[in-house]
Amino acid sequence: MMSQKKCRSVRVGSVEIGGPKFVIIAGPCSVESEAHLQETAAQVKKSGASILRGGVFKLRTNPQSFQGLGNDGLAVAKRVRDQLNLPIVCEITDPRQIGDMESIVDIFQVGSRNMYNYSLLKELGKTKKPVMLKRGFSALVEEWVLAANYITEGGNAQVILCERGIRSFDKITRNTLDLASVSYLKQNYEFPVIVDPSHGTGVQSLVTPMSLAAAAAGADGLLVEVHPNPDKALSDGFQTLDFKQFDSLVNQLNPLLTVLDRPLLTL
Amino acid sequence: MMSQKKCRSVRVGSVEIGGPKFVIIAGPCSVESEAHLQETAAQVKKSGASILRGGVFKLRTNPQSFQGLGNDGLAVAKRVRDQLNLPIVCEITDPRQIGDMESIVDIFQVGSRNMYNYSLLKELGKTKKPVMLKRGFSALVEEWVLAANYITEGGNAQVILCERGIRSFDKITRNTLDLASVSYLKQNYEFPVIVDPSHGTGVQSLVTPMSLAAAAAGADGLLVEVHPNPDKALSDGFQTLDFKQFDSLVNQLNPLLTVLDRPLLTL
Amino acid sequence: MMSQKKCRSVRVGSVEIGGPKFVIIAGPCSVESEAHLQETAAQVKKSGASILRGGVFKLRTNPQSFQGLGNDGLAVAKRVRDQLNLPIVCEITDPRQIGDMESIVDIFQVGSRNMYNYSLLKELGKTKKPVMLKRGFSALVEEWVLAANYITEGGNAQVILCERGIRSFDKITRNTLDLASVSYLKQNYEFPVIVDPSHGTGVQSLVTPMSLAAAAAGADGLLVEVHPNPDKALSDGFQTLDFKQFDSLVNQLNPLLTVLDRPLLTL
Amino acid sequence: MMSQKKCRSVRVGSVEIGGPKFVIIAGPCSVESEAHLQETAAQVKKSGASILRGGVFKLRTNPQSFQGLGNDGLAVAKRVRDQLNLPIVCEITDPRQIGDMESIVDIFQVGSRNMYNYSLLKELGKTKKPVMLKRGFSALVEEWVLAANYITEGGNAQVILCERGIRSFDKITRNTLDLASVSYLKQNYEFPVIVDPSHGTGVQSLVTPMSLAAAAAGADGLLVEVHPNPDKALSDGFQTLDFKQFDSLVNQLNPLLTVLDRPLLTL
Repeated sequence: MMSQKKCRSVRVGSVEIGGPKFVIIAGPCSVESEAHLQETAAQVKKSGASILRGGVFKLRTNPQSFQGLGNDGLAVAKRVRDQLNLPIVCEITDPRQIGDMESIVDIFQVGSRNMYNYSLLKELGKTKKPVMLKRGFSALVEEWVLAANYITEGGNAQVILCERGIRSFDKITRNTLDLASVSYLKQNYEFPVIVDPSHGTGVQSLVTPMSLAAAAAGADGLLVEVHPNPDKALSDGFQTLDFKQFDSLVNQLNPLLTVLDRPLLTL
Repeated sequence: MMSQKKCRSVRVGSVEIGGPKFVIIAGPCSVESEAHLQETAAQVKKSGASILRGGVFKLRTNPQSFQGLGNDGLAVAKRVRDQLNLPIVCEITDPRQIGDMESIVDIFQVGSRNMYNYSLLKELGKTKKPVMLKRGFSALVEEWVLAANYITEGGNAQVILCERGIRSFDKITRNTLDLASVSYLKQNYEFPVIVDPSHGTGVQSLVTPMSLAAAAAGADGLLVEVHPNPDKALSDGFQTLDFKQFDSLVNQLNPLLTVLDRPLLTL
Repeated sequence: MMSQKKCRSVRVGSVEIGGPKFVIIAGPCSVESEAHLQETAAQVKKSGASILRGGVFKLRTNPQSFQGLGNDGLAVAKRVRDQLNLPIVCEITDPRQIGDMESIVDIFQVGSRNMYNYSLLKELGKTKKPVMLKRGFSALVEEWVLAANYITEGGNAQVILCERGIRSFDKITRNTLDLASVSYLKQNYEFPVIVDPSHGTGVQSLVTPMSLAAAAAGADGLLVEVHPNPDKALSDGFQTLDFKQFDSLVNQLNPLLTVLDRPLLTL
Repeated sequence: MMSQKKCRSVRVGSVEIGGPKFVIIAGPCSVESEAHLQETAAQVKKSGASILRGGVFKLRTNPQSFQGLGNDGLAVAKRVRDQLNLPIVCEITDPRQIGDMESIVDIFQVGSRNMYNYSLLKELGKTKKPVMLKRGFSALVEEWVLAANYITEGGNAQVILCERGIRSFDKITRNTLDLASVSYLKQNYEFPVIVDPSHGTGVQSLVTPMSLAAAAAGADGLLVEVHPNPDKALSDGFQTLDFKQFDSLVNQLNPLLTVLDRPLLTL
């Protein structure tokens, strides 16, 4: 009844996403400064993350909002990545950024706003780096898989899907996290699937229970926003964990992963 | 961060819903015959269910569809309940059924179609039996809690909430199971919360992973449709487990419940 | 391409809904007092309404909110109806109200919360009075038509459908008014269809443009909330027109109805 | 109550969108051949359209679907445009197309899939050509306006918004056309707003009633798919009008526009 489709796992250095171990990607919503990223990277690695997240080109609904550090942030990301030997995932927002980003980031992230940006997806199909494709705000699972095909048909089979919640009518959560889609994808497609409980709920206190639920639903990993001081984060603080909360999340997750026979991958 | 609100648990004989143990309610969508209900009840009890479900007044979208056995089904339900000493939950669809049902059922179920039927909820507020209130098809969590208040304000505090998925745009699942609402309710309200992964997905192969996810999200129990032969069920066969699948679900759930410190309640 | 299905019109005294003329039902959300209803009824009739609305059993999400005047309101409604010779539509919320209401109201209204209350619909199928069935908050058009069939199969063919908006993600309007459903129903079914732009938008300034749009989409009439002083209404003031605004609505509507060959029915 | 915000109209040759007259943009979903576009352009102009639509870079959910003629289509579009002296709107899907398109098209169209593609919007903010920005599949009205601001803040104030329906749960229509958003935008913002009843319903027989409703709701114009033989169209035939149906639409629309004091702009 519940046979999973064989997963085409994606490798980043010594990290395998979609393999026998569960993977946590963590870090700030935006790279704010070198010290800030360094501190966060060291802490999340210590707690159990094996990939660092950190946006440098931010897509913000309001053109007046903080838009990220851009290429300066990229340089920061590279130094922190190399110092800590921690692969990094950064969001790409324009095909013209590929040149600058390809030698620095380990995984390209395509955000929800760009899931239907087929020009961008086609270009990413020509690169050699893995792509983490977030689900569009109201994308059908079928549309999401077809968007992934825009990348794979270009020759790049290294695609990771990321469920991050869909738009719904209830506003107690920022989005409605659709965990059944995760199980459905694992049963029917070969892509690794990770879950973003931070955007998926938009509520700090719901990040940990939804992380546990995602693991139980069969996800291959998590993408979690962590910041030294969420109240002062330049973006998305309300859904971001501090170091202690993130460490607690991993501690609650570990025994669950053990009984699920899916131990946490650590570096 | 994640402190749960103290739960006002609901007792049905020796079964406590919302207490230290996890509770499984299982059984057919509709009572089809005495032999059918007996066989199913015996099997789900053996596998680990502690409450029997079985509809006798069915609310069907199409007036031409099978509408349940009505009062005959109620008599069947009572006999099976007494033989197996297994409490039973039945759906009520009209305030005028209270008289006949009150001495037979252990828990009144109010289905999604009647969550806003305040006349019915007020009458149930005057009974002495627990009420399991399912979420409306597109009910806000706040509306759902206020609907529960229609019952409690009548003097009946024994209300159990049941998340069963909300209506959304994607049709790979019958509904979108909103597990964040479960965690949110447990953090903010005193009601026990159980999850119906059968209606919540409408897909047999997704029932087990969503059951595990529900437990990890902090649910107090499950409501699962089980039938000796789902392909021949008079209603909802496509989302119904057979005995072997249900037994496998419980076997996968048990170790998870152990690490969650929420062992399964068995009779 | 656009052939309409022949409409099975519904007659209330000299008023025909679904016939060659366009019908406006107007009045307060709730009956607040006799003077209040009398004043409102006289004004809306003068402006062009041919049926009076006014709730006496109100279904409110919060059990603490004003619940209507109940049977006292019914007596008020009857006196005003008789004085002004203006048929009245009142919402029914419980099958046990039929006895009291049947001799007084001209049309039973079933609200969105009760569209799936099949017990109530079946009872209304046995009465001799027309039933106006509002669409459920997230009801499929197909479910809505099947709910209407619960009434017609009981022997009462006098069903009017009322589109009142569906639940969606955007909160600038209370609901999303689905005017395509109106055209779809007129092309495919025999029921008269009216539109409630008050609940359909929840925004006073949008009531008039959506009324014009509803007429252009092929609706058979409107259901509009009007109050002498919307700011002081006991319910729903934010979406209610005052007398001057309602008069202006009718004045804007009239020339449109003329070119649509669907003149306004007046008493 | 219903005062409209002063509209910042957009001029394309002798056509003013958002001015005193109502504007119809019509043409095929995709440019299929020169003869095909020529025939269609001549017919829609004759019936009353003043701008031609026709996609050359098509964004299709499935990478295997017909993707448009690309630059060849652009050359075809230019010749037909010049012959018939009919301004043309074409969809842009990548900032790198601006160079080729800017000298040919009269209006850049940004499709729903790219409403959140802020890189593209910023580049269009630097061009001198008007931009028609379609609403994203589930975009909040506020997000849509902020997306328009990405263009205007770059220095290009010539933005037209196009409502094309939002994603909802009911599948009788492809999308749910949200006409209240049109009235809301006209009351609160300065952008011209046009309506696409073809994508907005996805149903041929609903295009005309929704066109009339859009005009009544205060839209500044329409975007309609027309094809010599919709059954043979390479894309979207099910929602496309043939010449006779389009002519009939305009004939039904004209008297309505007269009473709305918003006569049709013809060339």
